Amino acid sequence: MNVAFQGEIGAYSEEAVLALYPDANVVPQVSFDSVFECTEAGEVERAVIPIENSLFGSVHVNYDLLSRHELHIVGEWYLRIQHHLLSIPGSSMEKIRRVYSHPQAIGQCQDFLKRYLPHAEAISSYDTAGAAKMVAERQDQSLAAIASHRASLEYGLSILQSGIESNHQNFTRFLALKKLDPSGILPDGLPAPEREEAEMKTSIMYAVKDNVPGALFKSLAVFALRDLDLFKIESRPLIGRPGSYIFYLDFKGTTHDEPVKKAIAHLDEITVDLSVLGSYPQAVIA
Amino acid sequence: MNVAFQGEIGAYSEEAVLALYPDANVVPQVSFDSVFECTEAGEVERAVIPIENSLFGSVHVNYDLLSRHELHIVGEWYLRIQHHLLSIPGSSMEKIRRVYSHPQAIGQCQDFLKRYLPHAEAISSYDTAGAAKMVAERQDQSLAAIASHRASLEYGLSILQSGIESNHQNFTRFLALKKLDPSGILPDGLPAPEREEAEMKTSIMYAVKDNVPGALFKSLAVFALRDLDLFKIESRPLIGRPGSYIFYLDFKGTTHDEPVKKAIAHLDEITVDLSVLGSYPQAVIA
Repeated sequence: MNVAFQGEIGAYSEEAVLALYPDANVVPQVSFDSVFECTEAGEVERAVIPIENSLFGSVHVNYDLLSRHELHIVGEWYLRIQHHLLSIPGSSMEKIRRVYSHPQAIGQCQDFLKRYLPHAEAISSYDTAGAAKMVAERQDQSLAAIASHRASLEYGLSILQSGIESNHQNFTRFLALKKLDPSGILPDGLPAPEREEAEMKTSIMYAVKDNVPGALFKSLAVFALRDLDLFKIESRPLIGRPGSYIFYLDFKGTTHDEPVKKAIAHLDEITVDLSVLGSYPQAVIA
Repeated sequence: MNVAFQGEIGAYSEEAVLALYPDANVVPQVSFDSVFECTEAGEVERAVIPIENSLFGSVHVNYDLLSRHELHIVGEWYLRIQHHLLSIPGSSMEKIRRVYSHPQAIGQCQDFLKRYLPHAEAISSYDTAGAAKMVAERQDQSLAAIASHRASLEYGLSILQSGIESNHQNFTRFLALKKLDPSGILPDGLPAPEREEAEMKTSIMYAVKDNVPGALFKSLAVFALRDLDLFKIESRPLIGRPGSYIFYLDFKGTTHDEPVKKAIAHLDEITVDLSVLGSYPQAVIA
């Protein structure tokens, strides 16, 4: 199966792809936009994207892409983000003068860099894995990259120091996406779950009608009245429309369940721009 | 009034300080921890911290610091984040070989860098304003910084290109914090608002008792039943405790209002670790 992700071979997203689809043929893409586009065009069977991080919140830009594209969520995965300092075999901490990585990874390792490599320059790359690849190609013992364990294996680099991120409770939640063919759409228009497991969840997005007091509470009543437990709720203010919000909601159950169908129909009466993003097996933070 | 913020003179946080307190004596700090510590120690009268961004979600690390320190929220501000490419007078786009900035700012300007400065290296600094300062000191026309308009004024740099961030709907919400003296605490233990304006909001954090079905819904009923409108709601999963969440809530009203007092007392019955973070005048996204 061909699975698209944003980044290069050895990126954290590639780890998430292989956790979800161990036999995948991984298809690197330069941007999230191109990940969505090639999946919608049928060039790959699946896409895997990051949607939220335990330290930095939701990736709103990917929710925006979900709302604009005809893809549905068919799975999720929580990946622990562990950064390592990599260099070519034979190098050591004292030799390092320049450290390459994605800006966010550099940010997450600033305490380590400040303390142990105060005289090294931290230089931004477009990708953690791309930084590792470049360090491997240049064969210079004064260069290091901050990247994943997988990148060290892929590019033949040694780990000078492992787990250099400041906060070890750093998890990113990834979603697996698929373009549904007509057989994947239920008669009522809802996306069918691709497979059923014991613990399932459904993700939706919606807005509430402007200036309706208690509109959010009413929209949640739709679930509470049917004993459908919530896993995630988040409001996001709409820029340029004070007082208007988008809501992200994850709840227990699938679009095959009668109470879920009824809750969604009920929600449609009292909200606007309701999108049912998909039903899929629930993952746990390992 | 002395006001602490994280970063150097010319940082975006300093802009937020001066928007909230135009006559402030700004007190730069190296970390968010030190911002909280010097405010709690009474070395400054106020602190200003970022709490959420329109593209990257909530700054969970600052919610964690709020829950661990005896500071209360007394104000908020939405700052539009606009990045500029700065260099010394006499330089130009063609001369730039190295671009310095905070990793997050570099990330937000990657489209611009890729397109217009494909051969320049992007190098991480600990601070956007620190990068501007360094570029001003080195007096080398091949160096540029990505930083704020304020930093260009502070360090005498020219703007080579303004508004180079990929997404122009980039706003950061800042909070103003204060250590309350006993006169700022109401008889019922709640923090009093520092001042009253027409539109006020109150921020709280809490957890719900584990494994109580519909616990979130019940906690929101406390507000809905009293017609207290919500401005923000966000669940955050607790790592290592599957099924447990912290909730962030902003709602209309202040701790002086009878319905708010009753809602909080009611909430205390059905939640755990309830923190009332403060009541303050509501800002709008400009």
